[in-house]
Amino acid sequence: MNTVKAFGAHSADLPLAPLEIERRHPGPDDVQIEILYCGVCHSDLHTARNEWKNTLYPSVPGHEIVGRIVAVGNKVSKFKVGDLAGVGCLVDSCGHCSSCHEGEEQYCENGFTGTYNGPAFGGENTYGGYSQSIVVKESFVLHIRHDSQELASVAPLLCAGITTYSPLKHWGAGPGKQVGIVGLGGLGHMGVKIAHAMGAHVVLFTTSENKVADALRLGADEVCISTNASQMAQYANRLDLIINTVAVPHTLDDYLRLLKKNGTMTLVGAPAEPHPSLEVFNLIFKRRQLAGSLIGGIAETQEMLDFCAEHGLVSDIEMIPMQDINRAYERMLKSDVKYRFVIDMKSLS
Amino acid sequence: MNTVKAFGAHSADLPLAPLEIERRHPGPDDVQIEILYCGVCHSDLHTARNEWKNTLYPSVPGHEIVGRIVAVGNKVSKFKVGDLAGVGCLVDSCGHCSSCHEGEEQYCENGFTGTYNGPAFGGENTYGGYSQSIVVKESFVLHIRHDSQELASVAPLLCAGITTYSPLKHWGAGPGKQVGIVGLGGLGHMGVKIAHAMGAHVVLFTTSENKVADALRLGADEVCISTNASQMAQYANRLDLIINTVAVPHTLDDYLRLLKKNGTMTLVGAPAEPHPSLEVFNLIFKRRQLAGSLIGGIAETQEMLDFCAEHGLVSDIEMIPMQDINRAYERMLKSDVKYRFVIDMKSLS
Repeated sequence: MNTVKAFGAHSADLPLAPLEIERRHPGPDDVQIEILYCGVCHSDLHTARNEWKNTLYPSVPGHEIVGRIVAVGNKVSKFKVGDLAGVGCLVDSCGHCSSCHEGEEQYCENGFTGTYNGPAFGGENTYGGYSQSIVVKESFVLHIRHDSQELASVAPLLCAGITTYSPLKHWGAGPGKQVGIVGLGGLGHMGVKIAHAMGAHVVLFTTSENKVADALRLGADEVCISTNASQMAQYANRLDLIINTVAVPHTLDDYLRLLKKNGTMTLVGAPAEPHPSLEVFNLIFKRRQLAGSLIGGIAETQEMLDFCAEHGLVSDIEMIPMQDINRAYERMLKSDVKYRFVIDMKSLS
Repeated sequence: MNTVKAFGAHSADLPLAPLEIERRHPGPDDVQIEILYCGVCHSDLHTARNEWKNTLYPSVPGHEIVGRIVAVGNKVSKFKVGDLAGVGCLVDSCGHCSSCHEGEEQYCENGFTGTYNGPAFGGENTYGGYSQSIVVKESFVLHIRHDSQELASVAPLLCAGITTYSPLKHWGAGPGKQVGIVGLGGLGHMGVKIAHAMGAHVVLFTTSENKVADALRLGADEVCISTNASQMAQYANRLDLIINTVAVPHTLDDYLRLLKKNGTMTLVGAPAEPHPSLEVFNLIFKRRQLAGSLIGGIAETQEMLDFCAEHGLVSDIEMIPMQDINRAYERMLKSDVKYRFVIDMKSLS
């Protein structure tokens, strides 16, 4: 085992602090990555503070990892020392269920192994990207084809990027489609960029007047202030697909009404408390659908990274040193970030 | 105008009683039908008692109408005097919106005209099938290809049949698919029969032990008592599609958990009070969908009638005279009917 420096939480009510963790020596199929940057996802905070009631401590968050490969096992064929590499939300899955066979490891019937907080259904804890290095099975490591200059801004693609790309792809966003994105945060700003790059007509919904200019700059064709009932009414029955990134309870009916016949609203955020109950007639009268979507599989994550490299898409970020993580969490809770914090892992050494 | 005998409600708190209504003389495109039988749908009761807060009085319910054509306009080409005919939930729509062009008049962007209680967005009231005759545009009249002996049992297909057929078809019920039907009432019993005839493996969910034998007789491959948690657990992640016919508030999560990845639960009943709020993680973790579906268009209703005729499917009914309608409503509220009341319209003369 190698001892490496990390940052993590020892309990739900303590701030994150420095700690040391053990990483295994790379096995034959493993890749060892020196972590250069790690994005800060709202799930990191949910987990550090045990808000989903399933946290194993100590908890070392971080699943938007980019870095450079420093060692490879003797059976590794797709990576070599010196390559840029990424790791997202998954580091393992059962490999033999129907979802794994379909390359959708995020829906593994036996529970995937999260990059942090361990396997969903028991087993050893896993430690994420708030650390100097990580060892991951080759088959869960991604190639980074972006310019190395923009590596920090690539990190958030590993969660915020794929979480929006996957449902946009699954429900057919593209030319001729009217796509709504609800919320302009870490996920929402990537949703706008990706939906625009896919060729869809993009409407961004936000409560903040002061995000309008930014949304248009990021690729939205239109912006609707969601607290303005007459603006909302203009979009009734107009959208094919809505990606709803808002993870605090809100009235889903306000958005369901904006879907045309056969339209789908997909939730990618999970609030700690439930949304208010929805009006069944809003589903019945237009054969609308309310769905959910979870990150993406490894193959689709690679596809997303390649798509973003090809279209020149990265995240808008604010770089922080590891030591500022607790302050960053407080700012994230106030949506005071444009649009993703990324930790410069040099700060840890 | 022709004055005809009917049964209807003069206000939300009065029982249904005899009344007389006017029917127009058939125009060039119209068909005049002598009503022989009319099914009794829960929507009839909701409307008569103004439970959806949109009832125009007097209210003459009934949208599961079968009868014999007694007159046709001079431009009518698909029907002739003496033909059996059916009328379902719709008697008109705008004819020029995208849904109408797609033959899905039930989703008409400008609001279809219901067989009773008039157009959704204003206009004259319409009177339904609790009456001696009705005059309907040819394009909203259905051919009945069943044997005339079983005509009374065909009536419920016009609403209960199409309401389950349409989502079963839309979401791909058929061989190799695991389909759940929730509730064994008017809709549910048709859902079981139709899903079985489509070749799906059918699991019926009911709270009543005493419906098990009947469900198996009607075509269910398995029956699960939904109040039994260990029975329910056996179906976790197993179903491709659930048609949920229950129109009283209940915990949707109990059924969402039974869907496999990409599975859909479609609600075809609308409770007067909302269902308890659902758990977003149940949608996200398997990319599940919650949907709604509304009856069917005219073309699909004809397709359903032909499918049922070909497969020998009709409704299980209990025949009543018109004068027993108020008692039938009370029994319907207690689910005390196997499985649909049908009014013998001879009783009205």
